[in-house]
Amino acid sequence: NDETYMNFALDLAVSASGQTSPNPLVGAVIVKNNQIVGMGAHLKAGTPHAEVHAVRMAGDQAQGATAYVTLEPCSHYGRTPPCADLLIESRVDRVVVASVDPNPEVKGRGIEKLKAAGITVEVGVLKEKADKINSFFFHYMKTATPYVTLKAAATLDGKTASYTGSSKWITGERAREDVHLNRMKHDAILIGAGTAAADDPSLNVRLDHAFRQPVRIILDTSLRTSPTAKMLHDKGAPVWIICGSGADEKRKQALEAAGADIIKLQEETITIPVLLGKLGEKNIQSLYVEGGAAVHGSFLDAAAFQELHYYIAPKLIGGKTAFPVFGGRGIALMEEAAELVVESTETLGEDMKITAFPKKG
Amino acid sequence: NDETYMNFALDLAVSASGQTSPNPLVGAVIVKNNQIVGMGAHLKAGTPHAEVHAVRMAGDQAQGATAYVTLEPCSHYGRTPPCADLLIESRVDRVVVASVDPNPEVKGRGIEKLKAAGITVEVGVLKEKADKINSFFFHYMKTATPYVTLKAAATLDGKTASYTGSSKWITGERAREDVHLNRMKHDAILIGAGTAAADDPSLNVRLDHAFRQPVRIILDTSLRTSPTAKMLHDKGAPVWIICGSGADEKRKQALEAAGADIIKLQEETITIPVLLGKLGEKNIQSLYVEGGAAVHGSFLDAAAFQELHYYIAPKLIGGKTAFPVFGGRGIALMEEAAELVVESTETLGEDMKITAFPKKG
Amino acid sequence: NDETYMNFALDLAVSASGQTSPNPLVGAVIVKNNQIVGMGAHLKAGTPHAEVHAVRMAGDQAQGATAYVTLEPCSHYGRTPPCADLLIESRVDRVVVASVDPNPEVKGRGIEKLKAAGITVEVGVLKEKADKINSFFFHYMKTATPYVTLKAAATLDGKTASYTGSSKWITGERAREDVHLNRMKHDAILIGAGTAAADDPSLNVRLDHAFRQPVRIILDTSLRTSPTAKMLHDKGAPVWIICGSGADEKRKQALEAAGADIIKLQEETITIPVLLGKLGEKNIQSLYVEGGAAVHGSFLDAAAFQELHYYIAPKLIGGKTAFPVFGGRGIALMEEAAELVVESTETLGEDMKITAFPKKG
Amino acid sequence: NDETYMNFALDLAVSASGQTSPNPLVGAVIVKNNQIVGMGAHLKAGTPHAEVHAVRMAGDQAQGATAYVTLEPCSHYGRTPPCADLLIESRVDRVVVASVDPNPEVKGRGIEKLKAAGITVEVGVLKEKADKINSFFFHYMKTATPYVTLKAAATLDGKTASYTGSSKWITGERAREDVHLNRMKHDAILIGAGTAAADDPSLNVRLDHAFRQPVRIILDTSLRTSPTAKMLHDKGAPVWIICGSGADEKRKQALEAAGADIIKLQEETITIPVLLGKLGEKNIQSLYVEGGAAVHGSFLDAAAFQELHYYIAPKLIGGKTAFPVFGGRGIALMEEAAELVVESTETLGEDMKITAFPKKG
Ligand SMILES: [Zn+2]
Ligand SMILES: [Zn+2]
Ligand SMILES: [Zn+2]
Ligand SMILES: [Zn+2]
Repeated sequence: NDETYMNFALDLAVSASGQTSPNPLVGAVIVKNNQIVGMGAHLKAGTPHAEVHAVRMAGDQAQGATAYVTLEPCSHYGRTPPCADLLIESRVDRVVVASVDPNPEVKGRGIEKLKAAGITVEVGVLKEKADKINSFFFHYMKTATPYVTLKAAATLDGKTASYTGSSKWITGERAREDVHLNRMKHDAILIGAGTAAADDPSLNVRLDHAFRQPVRIILDTSLRTSPTAKMLHDKGAPVWIICGSGADEKRKQALEAAGADIIKLQEETITIPVLLGKLGEKNIQSLYVEGGAAVHGSFLDAAAFQELHYYIAPKLIGGKTAFPVFGGRGIALMEEAAELVVESTETLGEDMKITAFPKKG
Repeated sequence: NDETYMNFALDLAVSASGQTSPNPLVGAVIVKNNQIVGMGAHLKAGTPHAEVHAVRMAGDQAQGATAYVTLEPCSHYGRTPPCADLLIESRVDRVVVASVDPNPEVKGRGIEKLKAAGITVEVGVLKEKADKINSFFFHYMKTATPYVTLKAAATLDGKTASYTGSSKWITGERAREDVHLNRMKHDAILIGAGTAAADDPSLNVRLDHAFRQPVRIILDTSLRTSPTAKMLHDKGAPVWIICGSGADEKRKQALEAAGADIIKLQEETITIPVLLGKLGEKNIQSLYVEGGAAVHGSFLDAAAFQELHYYIAPKLIGGKTAFPVFGGRGIALMEEAAELVVESTETLGEDMKITAFPKKG
Repeated sequence: NDETYMNFALDLAVSASGQTSPNPLVGAVIVKNNQIVGMGAHLKAGTPHAEVHAVRMAGDQAQGATAYVTLEPCSHYGRTPPCADLLIESRVDRVVVASVDPNPEVKGRGIEKLKAAGITVEVGVLKEKADKINSFFFHYMKTATPYVTLKAAATLDGKTASYTGSSKWITGERAREDVHLNRMKHDAILIGAGTAAADDPSLNVRLDHAFRQPVRIILDTSLRTSPTAKMLHDKGAPVWIICGSGADEKRKQALEAAGADIIKLQEETITIPVLLGKLGEKNIQSLYVEGGAAVHGSFLDAAAFQELHYYIAPKLIGGKTAFPVFGGRGIALMEEAAELVVESTETLGEDMKITAFPKKG
Repeated sequence: NDETYMNFALDLAVSASGQTSPNPLVGAVIVKNNQIVGMGAHLKAGTPHAEVHAVRMAGDQAQGATAYVTLEPCSHYGRTPPCADLLIESRVDRVVVASVDPNPEVKGRGIEKLKAAGITVEVGVLKEKADKINSFFFHYMKTATPYVTLKAAATLDGKTASYTGSSKWITGERAREDVHLNRMKHDAILIGAGTAAADDPSLNVRLDHAFRQPVRIILDTSLRTSPTAKMLHDKGAPVWIICGSGADEKRKQALEAAGADIIKLQEETITIPVLLGKLGEKNIQSLYVEGGAAVHGSFLDAAAFQELHYYIAPKLIGGKTAFPVFGGRGIALMEEAAELVVESTETLGEDMKITAFPKKG
């Protein structure tokens, strides 16, 4: 029964998917005498938390009721007063929590407050499901770096272009639409300077119902990107260009003049851990890495990804010197290969999509 | 109702899978007054045809009955007298045939004979299914070359070895067992000289219930293969080594002394069409191509395969210079990529198996 | 896309199942720029309507937004001011409605008001689903009589007791639990005086999470029911006894003294249409008829039911004079048999449950 | 692996369904070196047993092979010499048997013979499946009485006719077709004299592919059946009329003159056990009881059925005095109700078919 209500609270939370960043998805339900008396979800950063809506709706009915919240109620004064205090004032008897808030400012303190006020608190109901809907947020809170989704599209034989470089299009319409959906879910999209130069892509979300455009990031050690790149002139999302310490100052100014934000690292070359730390500082909680091969190779070599979206076109390109989907250095011994746990295999038009996670040591 | 009986005849045919080569699978059922009065299957080359068993079982009951045969009854004197004649003598009224025999010696003549004798003949009942169970035979009869199954096993990113050459084992136990099952289904297995030298494989069928060992073929233009190769000394199936016209005579003699059959082509280099023509002459109806990359690349470049078995291990190797599953020259333009129709996607242990066919122009 | 949001609004509505009577279930979602800015459900009669919660949550964001409501917004001053006015004030641009409110006091007037205010209104999105969740309410509003669910439990051969009258228990635990769930969904439960006398049942909802107890009704033309009946003394839900005009006044007083509400009809015998009219007047929107055979027979003879829950125990009782599940007069000719549309067949423990509806002429 | 071959032998056996009575279905497969060298099925009483066909097909290849037989090989000289001897002569090494032959003339003797000859025998592979395909035969061999299938068709409320007796048609086309299929599977069909008088049915198998017509049996204690009954004049299957010892001799002669076989019992009234014993003597292995209510009631009261086919029309007839599907005396106490195990629930057009078996004590 607790699970039924928590499931509903999770449905409420998920209804706001993609619109709460940098805040997590949260849902709340208040139940008295087996009847729902309040419900709410957090809808957008800067607006009330889920608990506020639910308590408001419940009014007097909250007294003696049970509150179901998908994430531990906050305990600190942010843009809003702490929800833990609100629940105490509402005089609920019992609070059921799916997950403890990994935010170092909360992390159990909300629960402590509730308990100190004599409220029965149960933690862990549908925890796994609750963690999954906020996987970006949880990862970011624990590591201070973005959750990385590698997105790759290749032929069945693992190639992205023929030996001559011919490449458009590997996958079909439905797969590309899925890519746009996934772009919108992330805070930022990342490509390498090579891809930027070769394809001059706009990297925006082309969906009728798009409501946000993630930051576009180019890894470009020596600022080779042209100030006339399409991305810089479409007045869409910001463009960030990451470069090494030796990047030419004039090129930097030209790109800045064209509208780019240049992030010059202290190191001469870009390494993935440093990059992710920097993006974390800039509040990027989730990163969608679109390649090309060298960039994918770097993330693979650094074992720096949390999820893999691999689109397979039912084609063979062949060719010893054709372009492989993953470049970089690669592993030396088979025992070192990155092992994956396949979560799902879908069919998208003629293509296949494999969603996988790195196997945990 | 015709379909019900033909389905049963197909079940009878299929029960002898793998044991009739070079003959096709054939089943026969004789039905009188809605009751089965005879049934049979062809079990092995040199033994009676399906119709012979069925007519024998039916005895007098065949008179006025309907015979269901999955392949057109033969019309020529082979090791046995023609089945068309036998059916006429049995005095059946009606013969239902799934597929016309593609064998140039039959090809409609059996049906003609039956019709000439006043028997009603219906052709095409469950034809597609009947053709499928004899896909090797049909292809061979039409082209005089073997049906080619390409078997490839790679990581998700299409690689078979790391940049250092480390490769064992890509796939797991269950996938390897499936490979042994498929080896047994084919008349011959083919690898390149490189793979032969690197792995020194035995290429036999390692299954408890194995009842035949296909011919092992090495593509080896200049006869680099060592006379001490394991394959030559295990007293299993024959080993054929295909070489170019310039291959050294001494090496040839050494290999022959070690037990190999050397097939010297008239051309200096081995081309796939010539190879397949030669194997066709030698009654190889089906060929299982196990690679490596260069061999796979050659078959792909020549568009010379009828089926693809692609095993995917849920791993990433990465590396710009790691070994790709398909080598060769490869296509130049994406429009030329070999498009595939995926028939099935299976899970074998942790691995995935994709079975596909080239898309028909 | 409209369907996605309406589906969510329906989920919100359904979350309050069983707790809103006599009001219908209603959900509302407000969406701006493809993001949810408000949501709500009607939770209980006397508390705010769904639209009120949603508009409150949206605040300023409602301006220019689209509101999704599962039922036409109300247009009349009830316990709360009209939701149509509220939506107009909130300055939403567009309202999507699943179903027109069948309440004669609304019936299109809410929509008119919105349109008159220049708001785009779309009606009918997921109408069928929206009508289904409020089937009781819709039926009641259209007919002024309760929605009748006949509940019957019998052996496979359609009997409820052996020739000796032995009957307990026909069905098992799981089926009985399902009956309790369905009791709770209805405003009232009805049995005949015979069943009341024979079983002396309590007719309450025995579920841990029960939050309401429906009115218990006995059809008892001549007030044969004993003033000591269990039902009258358990301080549960009200007990209504329906009697004919000739019922004895002393018996009436005795039963009233015991706590029953006696509803004396103007006719000598109870007919189903009169009964349903009377219950309609008393705001009973849904009636769960539990039998026995004579009562079921009367409802069947009057073609007065909207739904049938038929539980089958996998047993045979047999016997020419055993008790049939449906009594009454019954049809005379097979052409007159009540034809049913089976909606679902479920397995409940060892028993089977068939849910069916009368076939529409 | 043994299961694979036994499954194929069972497929062979089942291909002759309905055409072997009074013999059981039997299939045989002979396997050598993992290849099938012989196969066969018993097709009709009086023709060779399955083993004979399979051994003939195998020829010399039988030596050292394994024979799979779905029923113990026979050990006695019947119309054919014993199959146990044949297998010994064929020099097979090993015999795998699904079920021991329940025929008192065999019952293990065949297996003994094989073992005595030094052959390895394994018994019980896929026994359950093998028993199921010969359920009639096994029951008959064990009890010397026919396997009884009760077939009933009623409305959802367990009625077969309205209070006026109106009854045609309860079920639809598809259900009736299924009845014809099941008639053909049984050796005899049985109805009561009442049904015979009321409906004057022909009780034959009306299917395009019918190949046998079961004996038609009327239970008619005092020979009320008219000598002009349709059944007696259609030159279809035999008609047997069972009567009590007091039946009028003149009526008997008139019916015999009309073509009926009259079976006069020694008792005045017909009891089910005596009836079944008599039918067993007359080699009826399977009996399909079609009713009416009194007959069904008698079989139920006597607990004398092995299978129930219950067709439900989605209709309600109602009526205290409408006709119930099961008549007879019936059980007195609910604890005595015949409990059933439902094997399957199918949809046939608008109707439902429930196949059930009596629960084993
Ligand atoms: Zn909060
Ligand atoms: Zn032939
Ligand atoms: Zn309202
Ligand atoms: Zn035998």
